[in-house]
Amino acid sequence: MNYRSLKVGIQDVTFGEGVTVIEPCNLYECTIGSNSFVGPFTEIQKGVVVGSHCRIQSHSFLCELVTVGDHCFVGHGVMFINDLFARGGPAGGDQSQWKRTVVGNHVSIGSNATILPVEICDHVVIGAGSVVTRPIMRSGIYAGNPARYLRAIS
Amino acid sequence: MNYRSLKVGIQDVTFGEGVTVIEPCNLYECTIGSNSFVGPFTEIQKGVVVGSHCRIQSHSFLCELVTVGDHCFVGHGVMFINDLFARGGPAGGDQSQWKRTVVGNHVSIGSNATILPVEICDHVVIGAGSVVTRPIMRSGIYAGNPARYLRAIS
Amino acid sequence: MNYRSLKVGIQDVTFGEGVTVIEPCNLYECTIGSNSFVGPFTEIQKGVVVGSHCRIQSHSFLCELVTVGDHCFVGHGVMFINDLFARGGPAGGDQSQWKRTVVGNHVSIGSNATILPVEICDHVVIGAGSVVTRPIMRSGIYAGNPARYLRAIS
Repeated sequence: MNYRSLKVGIQDVTFGEGVTVIEPCNLYECTIGSNSFVGPFTEIQKGVVVGSHCRIQSHSFLCELVTVGDHCFVGHGVMFINDLFARGGPAGGDQSQWKRTVVGNHVSIGSNATILPVEICDHVVIGAGSVVTRPIMRSGIYAGNPARYLRAIS
Repeated sequence: MNYRSLKVGIQDVTFGEGVTVIEPCNLYECTIGSNSFVGPFTEIQKGVVVGSHCRIQSHSFLCELVTVGDHCFVGHGVMFINDLFARGGPAGGDQSQWKRTVVGNHVSIGSNATILPVEICDHVVIGAGSVVTRPIMRSGIYAGNPARYLRAIS
Repeated sequence: MNYRSLKVGIQDVTFGEGVTVIEPCNLYECTIGSNSFVGPFTEIQKGVVVGSHCRIQSHSFLCELVTVGDHCFVGHGVMFINDLFARGGPAGGDQSQWKRTVVGNHVSIGSNATILPVEICDHVVIGAGSVVTRPIMRSGIYAGNPARYLRAIS
């Protein structure tokens, strides 16, 4: 065997009380708040903080520099991003080029959405399949590629 | 260990004859018709019915209240949805708010498509990366976000 | 047990020097060039060739007939396609209908992008969530559904 194969699983994760995780998943050096749920086939990387009473659904990927508040729902197949390929390609080892994502409280992100590194305020719904490319500073419902404001939450 | 970790795998699934499943996958309390195939990194939830001669490809997620007919193809990374966040967030325990998806026969769904809870008639092709937001009651080829009718199947 | 369950893992893969793979993943009868990385929850099928110094990130799917050059980045949840449903549904066993994808060198594909079978030249960036439906023969940055040329790489 001339390659290196690693199994990650759940390593060095700080869990609040009452968390449920469905395996297989790769979670490492992150924090998952109390009463949250993490579905299968997920990866949550180093330094990520997920609040309490959240659901991180199957097939989602939360990269380094992502923070999610309380009472949030991250749908299935949601991908977060921290590298905007600002110089025409991946930043690679140069993490000074990575950008931060901060998701507020009571934010619900539909399945297959893609979240570029932005700030998202409290009480936001993002439609399934959306691509969020700009900060969201006003509560409401957003959808599309790129995601645009649709209407207030009724 | 102050969290609960569950492994699901294949539990209480009703299989027809000649089904092939590639692991790892999470299938539970669902029905998979004869001669169908289920790829790896898939989740198929409780109560889902998949017909015969179907392919459910890798990384797909079929939620509760989804029914798929015979001779269907569900591409890679396809996400079904049953909760429209109708009250501004996930319905959570209130399953009376969940909606049903019914896919007919001979329906082919391209990879990375997202399917909101709708009815899809027989003989439909949905392009890769599409977001299906409305019922599809006419045979043909659909694509885009939101998915629109493109043309008849030739 | 009246169904057949297969575990694939890593089978008959030709690895260059210094490759790292994170499990679980399904890689079989493909070639991964030296110093490349393959993330978890990936599937790379028979005959795929990935060059050297590449990163194939988590949740990606590379189907048969895909070739990726050197120094490429395939983001999380990227799906490649070889079957255009040209006759209104999957080609199934008739592989003469499958189409080839050739990705050049120094190509970076954003997360959740979908790549139809096309040629992509060297030095291209494809935005997250894009759907690439046509060949890309000019270096630059592309995004959207369908993906369109945005601007040169600065």
